[in-house]
Amino acid sequence: MSVTAAQGFTAAGIAAGIKANGNPDLALVVNNGPRLAAAGVFTSNRVKAAPVHWSEQVLRGGTVSAVVLNSGGANACTGPKGFQDTHATAEKVAATLNGHGSAGEHNAGEIAVASTGLIGVLLPMDKLLPGIETAAAALSEDGGEAAAIAIKTTDTVHKTATVSRDGWTVGGMAKGAGMLAPGLATMLVVLTTDADVDGATLDKALRSATRTTFDRVDSDGCMSTNDTVLLLASGASGQVPVYADFADAVRKVCDDLARQLIGDAEGASKDIRIEVIGAATEDDAVEVGRSIARNNLLKCAIHGEDPNWGRVLSAIGTTRAAFDPDRLNVAINGVWVCRNGSVGEDRDLVSMKDREVRITADLSTGGESAVIWANDLTAEYVHENSAYSS
Amino acid sequence: MSVTAAQGFTAAGIAAGIKANGNPDLALVVNNGPRLAAAGVFTSNRVKAAPVHWSEQVLRGGTVSAVVLNSGGANACTGPKGFQDTHATAEKVAATLNGHGSAGEHNAGEIAVASTGLIGVLLPMDKLLPGIETAAAALSEDGGEAAAIAIKTTDTVHKTATVSRDGWTVGGMAKGAGMLAPGLATMLVVLTTDADVDGATLDKALRSATRTTFDRVDSDGCMSTNDTVLLLASGASGQVPVYADFADAVRKVCDDLARQLIGDAEGASKDIRIEVIGAATEDDAVEVGRSIARNNLLKCAIHGEDPNWGRVLSAIGTTRAAFDPDRLNVAINGVWVCRNGSVGEDRDLVSMKDREVRITADLSTGGESAVIWANDLTAEYVHENSAYSS
Repeated sequence: MSVTAAQGFTAAGIAAGIKANGNPDLALVVNNGPRLAAAGVFTSNRVKAAPVHWSEQVLRGGTVSAVVLNSGGANACTGPKGFQDTHATAEKVAATLNGHGSAGEHNAGEIAVASTGLIGVLLPMDKLLPGIETAAAALSEDGGEAAAIAIKTTDTVHKTATVSRDGWTVGGMAKGAGMLAPGLATMLVVLTTDADVDGATLDKALRSATRTTFDRVDSDGCMSTNDTVLLLASGASGQVPVYADFADAVRKVCDDLARQLIGDAEGASKDIRIEVIGAATEDDAVEVGRSIARNNLLKCAIHGEDPNWGRVLSAIGTTRAAFDPDRLNVAINGVWVCRNGSVGEDRDLVSMKDREVRITADLSTGGESAVIWANDLTAEYVHENSAYSS
Repeated sequence: MSVTAAQGFTAAGIAAGIKANGNPDLALVVNNGPRLAAAGVFTSNRVKAAPVHWSEQVLRGGTVSAVVLNSGGANACTGPKGFQDTHATAEKVAATLNGHGSAGEHNAGEIAVASTGLIGVLLPMDKLLPGIETAAAALSEDGGEAAAIAIKTTDTVHKTATVSRDGWTVGGMAKGAGMLAPGLATMLVVLTTDADVDGATLDKALRSATRTTFDRVDSDGCMSTNDTVLLLASGASGQVPVYADFADAVRKVCDDLARQLIGDAEGASKDIRIEVIGAATEDDAVEVGRSIARNNLLKCAIHGEDPNWGRVLSAIGTTRAAFDPDRLNVAINGVWVCRNGSVGEDRDLVSMKDREVRITADLSTGGESAVIWANDLTAEYVHENSAYSS
């Protein structure tokens, strides 16, 4: 499973002492080739963490031989020193791996770095750098699970997924609690494949997959400074998949991981699947879905198992999407409680006991649709996020 | 005080039985002239309640002889029957006032209607219509306080404000918990003046005032289907103020009421004053201010008295405003905890014990600024809004 399900990869996860509580906090994933192809997508937040600036540059080259990830500190808003620390981390990984005789010659410019934790605090480099040596010594073809565990922050479980097809595999790990809680629930994802695929193909498949998976997970409306999704190909299977098959496998792994992120979001008691149908354009459907996903009053109502469809309409009404208010329909868990912008079926017919709640918003305008996943708003979310850094 | 501080107005607030708990729920404000000039601004939500549709039409005529307001039901998303109910309410007010011999002949097309409460439920007209007779019988030059009480929903206190100048007065009442919680915390405001001012002047002064007061109060990022702000002039003082003086008085009353709304927001423990400075344009300043105001993670941090400036930067980073991430400065309660996008003064210097918390975000780009008021996010907010309609 995880990042070592595909051939050609080794990984490790260890406790370097970055986290005060002694939990695992450093992961290393190494691509042993023969290919070292890679693609990446990063946060669209204009305030980006040092490792995001670094890794964006690395990915521009299309070659990644290893990824080092730490939890326990985001290294965001840390100025020039923070960027120097990221650079030093990559240098240390390259030097250490070269010393340990991994296949090929590693250089820092091909080492991606990802961090997650509190913003505005420098990383304890005196612990992180020795930790890299420990992690390198622990690298193993079975290390995917340990790596997935080491990138957890407030995650209650580690998240991995794998899809295997005709002789090739796509696997991966993720951490985070949705898209995306700055300083706390940053989404970090590393996917690996042993398919023999070049960087341009990886990039195309990854962007296509994230657009309808991770980009449509909206746990609390907040966007992190550190979000990173990487896809590495070793080519170790020797198989060259048909593009559509490969893209589908990447999408399935992303979808699985995204669903796991929502299912483990901070303090959440409900996973909300918001499907917008009848939209004039896909962009309209996404805009409406996000507006519903981010409405705090609706999120509270769903927490209270209250099918308060008025709050759905109110959220739709704040968008620029094409619709006529008198033709809006809303279903909650399959019951059309709002018809033509007014009272529909009896709201008492709606059962909301399950963790998953389905909202369908029909704009009655066109044929486009989109699905956004969100979470409810709970006292536990408030508690977890008001007590974090103090 | 309130809507009867100015000469020429009578008001009443009574319990019509719309609220199940027997609390006051119906208010009536009558302009006895000699002028019947009026202006209004309404929610920009595209899903509008029936009374908003009605009152927008009424205000187009520039003449309002009375306003009837109910709490206990929003009459939003109630279809054609809801609109008929609003119309019937206005007709009943006109007929009742004509029967009671108020000055002038009332007609329904000059009666504004406002409602607040749960969305998607028809009003109990069998209670509301008789209530209008009770209210009309109770009309008094001292009725402003009772009217302000009758429009409360989850408000813990009623809100009124008055400014008097050279022989003329602007007064008013408000209900709501910010801008603006659909179905629950709709903002309803009625302002009155005895200055001798025409409709066009009222409109100009009101739009100018709301733009920098009610429009910059953002308690929970939600926009109501029912928000209504009305300004009525009786001309009863016989005084014609200089425009700048009049506009300033209207702005002061709006500012006072807006601040009261934030101070009584649902479940809030903090009032957050967000000032964005150094912006290239006022629009940039407002966009950045709103993004900060709506960041749930920051709102939780402030509830926890945690000066988590990383969450401020993260919120700024999601906007399209002009700024360089490496030149952002952030102060919390006067301590510049972030300088040049990185760590500034010691965060332990920040005291956040008071209810009011001041965030200053300096974009270091231009000379424009804006102030947005918001609230923190608390377990009480979640509780109040998850248990409402069930």
